[in-house]
Amino acid sequence: MSFDLILFGGTGDLTWRKLMPALFQAWRHNKLPGGGRILAVARDERSDEQYRAFIRERFFEVEAAKQPKQEEFARFSELLHYRRMDLSKPADYEGLKGWVDARAAETVVLFLATSPHLFPQICQQLGSVGLNGPHVRVVLEKPLGHDLQSAQEINRAVASAFKEQQALRIDHYLGKPAVQNLSALRFGNALFEPLWRRESISNIQITLAESIGVGTRGDFYDRTGALRDMIQNHALQLLTMIAMEPPPSNDADAIRDEKLKVLKSLKPFNAETVVRDVVRGQYRAGMVDGRKVAGYLEEEKVPAHSHCETFVALRTEVQNWRWAGVPFYLRTGKRLAAREAQIVVNFRPVPHPIFPGAARANKLVIKLQPEDGLELHLLAAKGGLGPGGSGTEQLSPVSLDLDFDKAFPTDRIGAYERLLLDALAGRLNLFVRSDEQEQAWKWVEPILKHWAQDTEGPRPYVAGSWGPPAASALVARDGHAWAEEQ
Amino acid sequence: MSFDLILFGGTGDLTWRKLMPALFQAWRHNKLPGGGRILAVARDERSDEQYRAFIRERFFEVEAAKQPKQEEFARFSELLHYRRMDLSKPADYEGLKGWVDARAAETVVLFLATSPHLFPQICQQLGSVGLNGPHVRVVLEKPLGHDLQSAQEINRAVASAFKEQQALRIDHYLGKPAVQNLSALRFGNALFEPLWRRESISNIQITLAESIGVGTRGDFYDRTGALRDMIQNHALQLLTMIAMEPPPSNDADAIRDEKLKVLKSLKPFNAETVVRDVVRGQYRAGMVDGRKVAGYLEEEKVPAHSHCETFVALRTEVQNWRWAGVPFYLRTGKRLAAREAQIVVNFRPVPHPIFPGAARANKLVIKLQPEDGLELHLLAAKGGLGPGGSGTEQLSPVSLDLDFDKAFPTDRIGAYERLLLDALAGRLNLFVRSDEQEQAWKWVEPILKHWAQDTEGPRPYVAGSWGPPAASALVARDGHAWAEEQ
Repeated sequence: MSFDLILFGGTGDLTWRKLMPALFQAWRHNKLPGGGRILAVARDERSDEQYRAFIRERFFEVEAAKQPKQEEFARFSELLHYRRMDLSKPADYEGLKGWVDARAAETVVLFLATSPHLFPQICQQLGSVGLNGPHVRVVLEKPLGHDLQSAQEINRAVASAFKEQQALRIDHYLGKPAVQNLSALRFGNALFEPLWRRESISNIQITLAESIGVGTRGDFYDRTGALRDMIQNHALQLLTMIAMEPPPSNDADAIRDEKLKVLKSLKPFNAETVVRDVVRGQYRAGMVDGRKVAGYLEEEKVPAHSHCETFVALRTEVQNWRWAGVPFYLRTGKRLAAREAQIVVNFRPVPHPIFPGAARANKLVIKLQPEDGLELHLLAAKGGLGPGGSGTEQLSPVSLDLDFDKAFPTDRIGAYERLLLDALAGRLNLFVRSDEQEQAWKWVEPILKHWAQDTEGPRPYVAGSWGPPAASALVARDGHAWAEEQ
Repeated sequence: MSFDLILFGGTGDLTWRKLMPALFQAWRHNKLPGGGRILAVARDERSDEQYRAFIRERFFEVEAAKQPKQEEFARFSELLHYRRMDLSKPADYEGLKGWVDARAAETVVLFLATSPHLFPQICQQLGSVGLNGPHVRVVLEKPLGHDLQSAQEINRAVASAFKEQQALRIDHYLGKPAVQNLSALRFGNALFEPLWRRESISNIQITLAESIGVGTRGDFYDRTGALRDMIQNHALQLLTMIAMEPPPSNDADAIRDEKLKVLKSLKPFNAETVVRDVVRGQYRAGMVDGRKVAGYLEEEKVPAHSHCETFVALRTEVQNWRWAGVPFYLRTGKRLAAREAQIVVNFRPVPHPIFPGAARANKLVIKLQPEDGLELHLLAAKGGLGPGGSGTEQLSPVSLDLDFDKAFPTDRIGAYERLLLDALAGRLNLFVRSDEQEQAWKWVEPILKHWAQDTEGPRPYVAGSWGPPAASALVARDGHAWAEEQ
């Protein structure tokens, strides 16, 4: 299959930090279809050779830990081409179309790695010059809008040039092997499904915690905040994977239909429940990994009195037969105690404990970061005589563990590598459909509106902690506790 | 608590092979109550010192691998006493009673490690001299009878002198930590109970396989056979632990009531179903662990044309709401391919596979021998692209494992140590009640009767195999397979 992969924003961070290393790995694993070209597009004048040098320099910095070979990169970089474009000029799109048409590749993938405010313009221009035929797909990177209205505007502009199945919205969490395993576990094993419901599950927690701060990107972050950056997309996508009904097949739309149903079942927020069920926080100075770090307001490029949230914890419910009354707790934040992305499924305790210690409940932990893994926490008898030789032994916690990197050392591929290969092959399962995305915005909108009017601002938390105490109280109110407090 | 532990059969195999090492460990672990005496009783004349020397010699042979210390054994052996008794002479029981009364220990445990044909006589005599007060318990070792009638005779004789709660029937499998964990897993974890039923479980397999032959005990074995030696007691006890309903408490009778209910729910055999659902086998010469071994009929002291079975495989059902229609397969044998005692719970496959490879079913393996452990076999996505980069990945088997020796390296105690300490403390949970035992005999009786009349004899199998092919066919008929063939 011949292809042209065209990267708009060809000199941007995303391109050299994520996409180029992923493409190199795909090429090295011999998974990139043969006969392809990768064209970077940006506004400066550069030759192909200059562009390759630009990427090479950054590549060996970004990938230093993997010690890639110069010679291999040189061969890979023969695929790379560069083209100057002013994205506001119709003539430049005509020129691009000519470059593409001259080759007539079977598949053309246009990856929009630019600032999203350019998406409408780019899509309209691509449509105008006819670079939107059935063999063309467009890949859109987040942030896909700033709120429901702006997301709808982007989607309308995209839809004016491309059909829904040509528009691939990336949520790179969906490319992670651990997230794909969520489906495999639930729908490939008969064991979990009977337990996967309100009768057996007490509550579900999704934590996307970072220990880093906003770094040098304070200005960008301050316009976004944790809710838009992590909850509206990644956390909600994980929630849909956990909560969805078994789909009739593994086809992209069968799965996305089920995910959409979950999003539509989420309990909507109102003025009262936003106050009660959502905690926003902002980090103050503190200690992370044994070193002192600044508070958010002291970070570079952050406005002096910013109310931007660097932490969110919230409680929601999926209002259907399977999940009625089961709290789903979502939280994310920067400068937290650990870099840790995980889903914790807390089961109910046994209804009638006959052994001492059996009141402690089972849980399943699905780990996404720092390593992929699975832990099933059970209680077992040690096989001893119990305290004082009493013969009635206290049950002890044990955990059945699976480390995916150890179990499958060779086959696993990174999230961007996976998503780029899926985009080239036209597999849509791991991309977000516009209706999902808009529904997610619709759900967070009452929170955004409330915060915009709220003069109190976010609650402070000490860098290196697990967020403001109110986040613990939110869960404690239901008689539960975050995983690290259990 | 002061105690007298009196071992009838004090110079026999069981005493020096199993009981003394267990008592030594209990003493060493500081779990033996203080102020105790251990009195061995046998027919020869011996001083205490001579008896201690007799045990010492054997102890250091049996326990060589553990490298026990001479000094420690010497201190332990101060607890040991010896007394000559002719078990047919009333006067000798009077003498024993006098020895016991002079001390007036709080607890007296009489361990009958003699041939079971002596049990009625011993119990009656103990009753006659009044060595059966409420502080006295009697421990009975298998074989407890040869069939229902002889078991009832023993139980009647025991009951003439002791109340049910004074009579402790040992099934040493119940003392194994892995078996205690069966209860802990089922009733200490909310995860398993919803799955533990016909809706989720396809079939259950109990395998008690030995690689050894009958050794020098051919005459004893030939009077017993695999059905009496392993199925009527150990395999059925394991079955009750797997199948029983949750008991209202961990009290001995609450548990034994539930176990009895299971035994009473077992599908009874008749002339037709014995032929169809029970396979008996006898080993022929073959290879075990890379070395040639003789067939059963060539073993020492085995009658030339013996029909004694060294292998049994059978299919049964537990006829209640929980288990209706779920086959329970039991098998045991000597000279099999491995020494392996395990319970395999095979779950049903997913009802509607949406991933390739998902038709393979989950299973839970509870390992008793050679090591205690737990394995949960699942399917997972490797996180790759699947065959030919197709993007639809074949699910792969993975197993979540727990090795109890590694998880709890310090607390675990051996089966006999556990059971002896329970007997001293009066904890009856792990002992078999007479009604359980008689019900188990009742259930095997049609098999024994049929075999007694059957002139065909057992099916031959090659030493080192997994038994006669008919054992595989028994399971294959239901569309299932033994674990090693899955």
